[in-house]
Amino acid sequence: MNNMNTEIISVGTELLLGHVTNTDARDVSEMLSQIGINVRYHTVVGDNPQRLAECARIARDRADIIITTGGLGPTCDDLTKQILCETFGVPLVESKAEADALYDYIRGGRQITPNNFVQALVPEGGTVFHNEWGTAPGCAFEKDGKIVIMVPGPPVECDPMFRACVIPYLKKLSDEQIVSHSVRIFGIGESAVDDIFAEEMNAMTNPSMAPYAKECDCLVQVTAKAGSEAEAEAMMAPVIAHVKEVLGDYVYGMDVECLEEAVLPQLRERGLTFAAAESCTGGEVAKRMTDIPGASAVFVGGAVTYTNEAKARLLGIDPALIEEKGAVSCEVARAMAERVREITGADIGLGITGLAGPDGDGVHPVGTVFIAMAVREQTYVREVYMGVHRTRSFIRRMAGNHAYDMIRRWLGGLEITPDNIFSTNRPDLF
Amino acid sequence: MNNMNTEIISVGTELLLGHVTNTDARDVSEMLSQIGINVRYHTVVGDNPQRLAECARIARDRADIIITTGGLGPTCDDLTKQILCETFGVPLVESKAEADALYDYIRGGRQITPNNFVQALVPEGGTVFHNEWGTAPGCAFEKDGKIVIMVPGPPVECDPMFRACVIPYLKKLSDEQIVSHSVRIFGIGESAVDDIFAEEMNAMTNPSMAPYAKECDCLVQVTAKAGSEAEAEAMMAPVIAHVKEVLGDYVYGMDVECLEEAVLPQLRERGLTFAAAESCTGGEVAKRMTDIPGASAVFVGGAVTYTNEAKARLLGIDPALIEEKGAVSCEVARAMAERVREITGADIGLGITGLAGPDGDGVHPVGTVFIAMAVREQTYVREVYMGVHRTRSFIRRMAGNHAYDMIRRWLGGLEITPDNIFSTNRPDLF
Repeated sequence: MNNMNTEIISVGTELLLGHVTNTDARDVSEMLSQIGINVRYHTVVGDNPQRLAECARIARDRADIIITTGGLGPTCDDLTKQILCETFGVPLVESKAEADALYDYIRGGRQITPNNFVQALVPEGGTVFHNEWGTAPGCAFEKDGKIVIMVPGPPVECDPMFRACVIPYLKKLSDEQIVSHSVRIFGIGESAVDDIFAEEMNAMTNPSMAPYAKECDCLVQVTAKAGSEAEAEAMMAPVIAHVKEVLGDYVYGMDVECLEEAVLPQLRERGLTFAAAESCTGGEVAKRMTDIPGASAVFVGGAVTYTNEAKARLLGIDPALIEEKGAVSCEVARAMAERVREITGADIGLGITGLAGPDGDGVHPVGTVFIAMAVREQTYVREVYMGVHRTRSFIRRMAGNHAYDMIRRWLGGLEITPDNIFSTNRPDLF
Repeated sequence: MNNMNTEIISVGTELLLGHVTNTDARDVSEMLSQIGINVRYHTVVGDNPQRLAECARIARDRADIIITTGGLGPTCDDLTKQILCETFGVPLVESKAEADALYDYIRGGRQITPNNFVQALVPEGGTVFHNEWGTAPGCAFEKDGKIVIMVPGPPVECDPMFRACVIPYLKKLSDEQIVSHSVRIFGIGESAVDDIFAEEMNAMTNPSMAPYAKECDCLVQVTAKAGSEAEAEAMMAPVIAHVKEVLGDYVYGMDVECLEEAVLPQLRERGLTFAAAESCTGGEVAKRMTDIPGASAVFVGGAVTYTNEAKARLLGIDPALIEEKGAVSCEVARAMAERVREITGADIGLGITGLAGPDGDGVHPVGTVFIAMAVREQTYVREVYMGVHRTRSFIRRMAGNHAYDMIRRWLGGLEITPDNIFSTNRPDLF
């Protein structure tokens, strides 16, 4: 199955108008790559029957698996099922289960139009993916050696349905099990990781490994295929152990999306809390942790002290210290971390001050950030310089990554302010 | 030119692996739709010469304007220029200006590889877009009645180059000037707006108007084409005035992206500042304002008080009040707004407390948020119920929109807590 080429067709005029970003194609691609399926094309087409049909024909000719997102709703714009089934000569038939589900929905007091019942039509002989996250079911059929899979467009439906229904469906089609893990890395860049493992990676086919860059960190993806999941896991274990050994404490987690996701359970398990005092990040560190459900177990809160006066009033930072050392300084970062820890009673206090641009302060270049972490024994400070060509959003995100990296290293008993991690002005180092 | 169909081809294996989202296609589509150019297809293809060539041929057959993003860099993966020029039979020649720019770059002490000089190759007889935001220039050529435009892939280069170079290039190709404005709306939904204007919109061709939904607000796009920009503006003026009159104080701005972008200059002009005390939004309100350069003129800072203890310690909220009324209550929101205003000395204090989910508090359903705004004369509170089916990220973003909407309404002397705006549990109302 891993030699089957896949095309994702996303249907919706709103995508072509630039009103929404095609996150479905990204999400689906990532899930497919994790089970070793190659995506060759993404196509976006509007709610237009002729153009959608033409795209379906092109996909039939160049791909083995065709996945559509969008166009499964009840309005007359929603034509994906009709067009794809026509293209492959597969009739649509009513699914009693889906029709019953719609009746239940109405009995539950929700309004529905007669048009809603088109949603209960499914490809004859196909598989239906019941939609627990919305009303329009997804579906799949096989015809002429091709597999066609259709899922709804709203990301809150597409993503969970793909994960819960489509991935298992695809896995069942194959005798082989494909399993993948990502080793997440912070403090060393993708190209440096590539240099370290290049020779080994080229020599490997199964299991395979590849480095990838994310916005402010990177990862090594390890993938294996075998007759069973356990066998695939066993094949990968020594590779993952090797990657972890070579990269050492740059590795911050396995199969997580970001540093805060790795840090949260570690803090929770040990019953520790943190608070953050943010200047240039302006709430980014707090927002990122509270994006995750359950953050309240570890995150107490904090202060966003965007002005010098706010630093004094909310945190009690001595204005004389700011006057003497400057708002962007090691000393002020330290004071912010210590004060927010004292005030909130959290185990860990973070203090972040720097220049996210576009304006500088005449002393430090844009991209300079001081990140402090206060714990009972001691306060640690990192001075990071990211380079003037970086965007405001990059500088803020990277500063947040450093803050979470310091917590992680402290929790793991690792060196908290290693020299080499400071050199984020070297473009190869993150 | 507005009858010319456009295809955007984004080149990069990282897009097909799901490591990055195709924001370029979205950004370019939005800019094109604002000058009235129809985008018919987005295609994503990897760094593979055969597949890219095939996609270029398909685009040549079905589109009049082909825009590529990505694949213009110096590595051997970067093949867009070569393949597109081959497809159209246009030779590549060295641009002296671009080669000189690369020499200057080296003289400036930057390292460069001989391979970098492929970047100085441009389509013969074409137009070169010098890259002020990176090193690889963009370019365009016309052949056989088709227009081919190539811009770099990194969004920090693609977006500004498209805006500064490609949009003027496209406008020059046309005798007509196409001008577009967006009227941004909060508190009433896209389908309601559609209902209000449906008949008029169907009867209009030039100028035209159309409503669009964004995640937590919506907009009406008004577009006109004429012999000159001034003429187009004059044609749109009465339409825009009419939309504003009918929608009244639901309109929060023109040609802005979000409520905070509308609020920032209004506060700055009047020399007013605000501070925010956030519980369920966890820093979202602070982060959104500080995403905008120049936020420090109006945003003082604030407190993220995620736990009850933090509410007491950072803001001095009486624990007895929380005990009596509950952390999610009108009274606590009010106290948060008033306390953060007092502590920071800001003109306006915001207080936000609610349930972003997935867990509730046993009293209010998930999606309940209280948003308070304290000003000198008075404190206003909105109670918003968004519905249990909403995601955590939607609830948090919508809560932030309400906070900024209250500031905007206060600044404009409008009703701050109108009854109808509360009904955000009605899916048609935002």
